[in-house]
Amino acid sequence: MVQQERPFDLLNRVLGQHVLIRLKGGTQIRGKLTSFDIHMNLVLVEAEELDGGEAKAKIGTMLLRGGNILYVSPV
Amino acid sequence: MVQQERPFDLLNRVLGQHVLIRLKGGTQIRGKLTSFDIHMNLVLVEAEELDGGEAKAKIGTMLLRGGNILYVSPV
Amino acid sequence: MVQQERPFDLLNRVLGQHVLIRLKGGTQIRGKLTSFDIHMNLVLVEAEELDGGEAKAKIGTMLLRGGNILYVSPV
Amino acid sequence: MVQQERPFDLLNRVLGQHVLIRLKGGTQIRGKLTSFDIHMNLVLVEAEELDGGEAKAKIGTMLLRGGNILYVSPV
Amino acid sequence: MVQQERPFDLLNRVLGQHVLIRLKGGTQIRGKLTSFDIHMNLVLVEAEELDGGEAKAKIGTMLLRGGNILYVSPV
Amino acid sequence: MVQQERPFDLLNRVLGQHVLIRLKGGTQIRGKLTSFDIHMNLVLVEAEELDGGEAKAKIGTMLLRGGNILYVSPV
Amino acid sequence: MVQQERPFDLLNRVLGQHVLIRLKGGTQIRGKLTSFDIHMNLVLVEAEELDGGEAKAKIGTMLLRGGNILYVSPV
Repeated sequence: MVQQERPFDLLNRVLGQHVLIRLKGGTQIRGKLTSFDIHMNLVLVEAEELDGGEAKAKIGTMLLRGGNILYVSPV
Repeated sequence: MVQQERPFDLLNRVLGQHVLIRLKGGTQIRGKLTSFDIHMNLVLVEAEELDGGEAKAKIGTMLLRGGNILYVSPV
Repeated sequence: MVQQERPFDLLNRVLGQHVLIRLKGGTQIRGKLTSFDIHMNLVLVEAEELDGGEAKAKIGTMLLRGGNILYVSPV
Repeated sequence: MVQQERPFDLLNRVLGQHVLIRLKGGTQIRGKLTSFDIHMNLVLVEAEELDGGEAKAKIGTMLLRGGNILYVSPV
Repeated sequence: MVQQERPFDLLNRVLGQHVLIRLKGGTQIRGKLTSFDIHMNLVLVEAEELDGGEAKAKIGTMLLRGGNILYVSPV
Repeated sequence: MVQQERPFDLLNRVLGQHVLIRLKGGTQIRGKLTSFDIHMNLVLVEAEELDGGEAKAKIGTMLLRGGNILYVSPV
Repeated sequence: MVQQERPFDLLNRVLGQHVLIRLKGGTQIRGKLTSFDIHMNLVLVEAEELDGGEAKAKIGTMLLRGGNILYVSPV
């Protein structure tokens, strides 16, 4: 089977959309993805930290370091 | 003995099939593999987080960072 | 969608402004960003360590090693 | 003393044989080695997870990420 | 805004001065910085380990490995 | 003072001899060193895991991944 | 201020002398430094593990992997 797209194409496809991010250690962040680079560093706006799926703290704009990300999922 | 294929050939062979993934820290994810790259970054669709083999949470589409993957197994 | 800017452009945009930084292990630092490099090493001035959002200890000027940063957020 | 072979020659020699693998965090896996690469990524078939030397769960075919392997031992 | 200096310029500026260093795991070291390299490896003289801001143990001259440093702050 | 040899020369000198190895996390392994590479990946034969200096489990031949080794000492 | 020497010059200067080494996880080692390389891999002779400043176990000759070293201090 031939790959239709590569993993980072997903990030490109969801630019401007909300994503859920799980970090090492369990922290969950939700926000709108506005940029990324090849290290999976991401910028989110309207970001908030979640606890059990509920907003726990408003963060606003943030730069997340790629190396600590477990996964990114469009919501 | 000569290798018939290299490890990443397995990923290529199971594109479009369901896989089980174990992450560092013990999290288990199951979903359909749609893409991967040389860092073992993976995109899954129809993904869900498992707990003791049972679905715990629907995630849908996700980009998993390769560096935190312990293993990938076709199911 | 085309990216308007790359993740590190955010750091450039907030030079001279106050940022909140979360490190691996949970430590939170707040201070004014005065420089950064491609490893996300940062220099802050007027920095302080936070505990539950409140200033816990004055640090002043500091060089933070990028590899241990979870995220950077302008405040 | 001159080395007769290099460490990865062992992997080549045991292709098609059963190996025991210890991962960081203590997980033990046993299976038949069918491929490896220079990062020590391995593919096993007929793999199972062990607990105290006893089979705990059948996994079947799996791709193990090299970076989390403590050791590989032919059995 | 244009950066006046890069993060490592701070280290150059405080050569010969006392710095406070926080390592991963929480260890705090105070001493006079006499050299550094691009990996943030540092040599301190008159160094001591701190506990709650108080000197706990005299170390004297030491080479600190950069990879384990959380931050460096002139005191 | 000029170095008479470099660290890896020690491994070369003890090829064919028994060594004690301490891994991250505390595991101790003893066995006869038969090969190594520049990543400090090692092959031991007649290897056994130790507990408090006593043999706890026979392992036989094993490939140890260099990245998890704290130290190697000829015995 | 201009650096008189670089961090690794300290290792060169203390070749043949006793050093105290702190590893990640807290292990302390004392011994005579006989070689090092650019990864901070070190060979010590007459080495012993310390507990609270006291010799706990004689190790003799050892190769310490640089990546796990917190600091090196001449004693």
